Amino acid sequence: MTEHALPQTFEPSDTASAVEALKARFGEAASTGSSVLGLHRRDESHHAPFDPDIVVFPSSTEEVAEVLRIASRFRVPVTPWGTGSGLEGGAIPTRGGITLSMARLDRILEIRPDDMIARVEAGVRRKTLNRELRDTGLFFPVDPGADASLGGMASTGASGTNAVRYGVMRENVLGLTVVTAAGEIVKTGSLARKSSSGYDLTRLFVGSEGTLGVVTEVSLRLHPIADSVSALAGFETLEGAIATVIDIKRMGLSIGRVELLDLQTVHAINREHARGGPLALEPLPTLFFEFQHALGESDPSTEAIAEIVASHGGTPLRWMRGADAAQVIWDVRRDAMGWAERERPGSRSWSTDTCVPISALAESILGASADIAASSVPGYIIGHVGDGNFHCIFMMLPDEEDEVHAIAERIARRALQASGTATGEHGVGIGKREFLIEEHGLPAVTLMRTLKAALDPLDILNPGKVLPDLV
Amino acid sequence: MTEHALPQTFEPSDTASAVEALKARFGEAASTGSSVLGLHRRDESHHAPFDPDIVVFPSSTEEVAEVLRIASRFRVPVTPWGTGSGLEGGAIPTRGGITLSMARLDRILEIRPDDMIARVEAGVRRKTLNRELRDTGLFFPVDPGADASLGGMASTGASGTNAVRYGVMRENVLGLTVVTAAGEIVKTGSLARKSSSGYDLTRLFVGSEGTLGVVTEVSLRLHPIADSVSALAGFETLEGAIATVIDIKRMGLSIGRVELLDLQTVHAINREHARGGPLALEPLPTLFFEFQHALGESDPSTEAIAEIVASHGGTPLRWMRGADAAQVIWDVRRDAMGWAERERPGSRSWSTDTCVPISALAESILGASADIAASSVPGYIIGHVGDGNFHCIFMMLPDEEDEVHAIAERIARRALQASGTATGEHGVGIGKREFLIEEHGLPAVTLMRTLKAALDPLDILNPGKVLPDLV
Repeated sequence: MTEHALPQTFEPSDTASAVEALKARFGEAASTGSSVLGLHRRDESHHAPFDPDIVVFPSSTEEVAEVLRIASRFRVPVTPWGTGSGLEGGAIPTRGGITLSMARLDRILEIRPDDMIARVEAGVRRKTLNRELRDTGLFFPVDPGADASLGGMASTGASGTNAVRYGVMRENVLGLTVVTAAGEIVKTGSLARKSSSGYDLTRLFVGSEGTLGVVTEVSLRLHPIADSVSALAGFETLEGAIATVIDIKRMGLSIGRVELLDLQTVHAINREHARGGPLALEPLPTLFFEFQHALGESDPSTEAIAEIVASHGGTPLRWMRGADAAQVIWDVRRDAMGWAERERPGSRSWSTDTCVPISALAESILGASADIAASSVPGYIIGHVGDGNFHCIFMMLPDEEDEVHAIAERIARRALQASGTATGEHGVGIGKREFLIEEHGLPAVTLMRTLKAALDPLDILNPGKVLPDLV
Repeated sequence: MTEHALPQTFEPSDTASAVEALKARFGEAASTGSSVLGLHRRDESHHAPFDPDIVVFPSSTEEVAEVLRIASRFRVPVTPWGTGSGLEGGAIPTRGGITLSMARLDRILEIRPDDMIARVEAGVRRKTLNRELRDTGLFFPVDPGADASLGGMASTGASGTNAVRYGVMRENVLGLTVVTAAGEIVKTGSLARKSSSGYDLTRLFVGSEGTLGVVTEVSLRLHPIADSVSALAGFETLEGAIATVIDIKRMGLSIGRVELLDLQTVHAINREHARGGPLALEPLPTLFFEFQHALGESDPSTEAIAEIVASHGGTPLRWMRGADAAQVIWDVRRDAMGWAERERPGSRSWSTDTCVPISALAESILGASADIAASSVPGYIIGHVGDGNFHCIFMMLPDEEDEVHAIAERIARRALQASGTATGEHGVGIGKREFLIEEHGLPAVTLMRTLKAALDPLDILNPGKVLPDLV
């Protein structure tokens, strides 16, 4: 880096001076209006909102660097903001300061169909990119549900239903442009599909939730659109459903998606069906499958799949042939939690996220089910079971937060006891910091702190996220 | 970490005291015998050999930590050693000191078939693991050619012919046990197949070539063994061969491997055939293909593939049906450079390694071919073309090193101009340090230096590798 302008003393933040400097430099692209602040005070999680002191809307990487230099000079926290769709509070500016909106960094910089690569600015949303790709026969597969920004998805280490087939952000980001705490612009990676050159800075920033640097551009791997066939089956037991997934994976069949819906979720879908909803299911824990094959190739081995399902106590497979039929189940998968939330007026959802080795998945989900059953708060389990990743979603009334927190804690601890993780895809944010040392051990967390101190010595980059507070 | 025992002053190394302390602690597992030193002075590369002062053979992670604590105390370099199969000098102890052999860290710790995970000590070789996995229907796919140690492969960021289908080490390592410069034991990752918890320490160490810590255990993703069918075709032009690969990839057909052999390599194979070798080819640039499908599934769409090949000026596909027929071409692929080396008595091979976006591959390879043609040193090009990765292998006499170095430099520069990398899979080691700043830019390399200084303040971990010397 050409200069290290960081002050060496730890003076207190001078927020007023930073706000003044940002307004002078950015004009209408720096706002302290209460409606703008209010739009940037919360994400989609249950975490308490907090107002930033100013929201800046830079239009280029260089402008982001200018913001960071001002933030460093006045030692003011900077919280990057994509679309506010996070589920662990990563974008809530819990210490105030500057919220750095990526909304104007919305250019698709380059699409290289032959290389199956796209370069985008951090604020581009995934659906926007996929619309732009429509005529290429390619798409960007990582799909966390929300129409999140690609910079936010990189920062959080997002994934979703497609990850079992295409991997998570970590595997699909080729390189980044990142602005450091000191306002330096760093380019990581290259457009080569693989490299063993130097330290893997790309993966250091992916999943670091804006605490080590601000992502402003992302190079992404694209994939060919595949043909697929979808199906569903109910299972006598949860163990049977999981054993089915294990067997199909070990056979090497190309699973595009495989989602588990617990009995409570199936009931919610059936109640919606009684109100005119699109799908009725047998009242059993259910798997939704998508099997993939190359365009023009023959279907996958449906007989082998049916045999595996039957051998583990599954109902006969219900094949959803054709794109429209398949879309029904994937829309239901997406919408079911919205229906469940509306069934409990005044509730909002708390979604917790763990991931375990698949051999521990049945026990983990059964444990979570028992926790839910023992609680007065309605809870639902939906899982990306091909990866061992599942979510428990609670429809929580305002006075039930402590109860849900206690259950979520038990679920996370159970994942850690099974050599799993307290967050498979939602990130650490605010909510999962309490498990970091338990999950990684003190030596690893100390090493993370060493990295944070080396890259952000003033602790201005999204402070209070990812790393637990020092006690 | 429970303690930071690193001395804060930069006193010179006290190698004699370190050697004495290691002999006292490790007895026969610490050797200064000239034959043992001689076995650890070079790898498979062209780089100049250098003797370590002592070779230690620890049997556990805790013993590795003890070695590191002694090394830190006396500020002596530590160079980890897997099998010595590296191609960029990463394991050559260019500053002497302690070579840390992983040969006795050779236990397969755990195989979890349902989770498709293996945990191994760093010294376990990939073929040993795959033999152990034989009855599970699973295998570990990353195959750099040599029977390398899995810790070495993780440290180098290895890949090979299978990477187009299964990814590189980065995607196939779930977690590590690493010993830091201060002798602390850090565990990274978990047994969950995905996680967004905390900084990605696993990927920070993968590919860092022992310069940030010493890998002692590796958790690996396993994959189901697939059925496959192999084929080959010659092409009028190199551009036609590359266009074929692009089209097949964009169709989404499951390529297991796709290797390009340039005309010089094809000639070498045919000369060997005249001496009784296994395969004769048309004298054209040639692609070797492997297409995969799940066990029991139908063959891939051979018609579509044949059409693509024909449309780009390929000869009719020669299908190698059955495992034995297919094995012939993959054995030839493995052995061809050995035959070429023997054709030039007194020569040894210098293999250089670059990777570019596939749209730039034809131009990059044609440029390298022209460089080779203009040289007096025989050179061959073999490529993992599905990834845009190719090797130029020179059969070099002792006085030709400068000439080959100059060509290798031109090839690397051409890759960088195409937004590629100077090393796709061999690592930086000694040989590719000169391109690091050109490839990543000074801000990124400065950030790498910041990480190195934070994790190894005494510069004892494989010093003189990866990062360029400060000028």
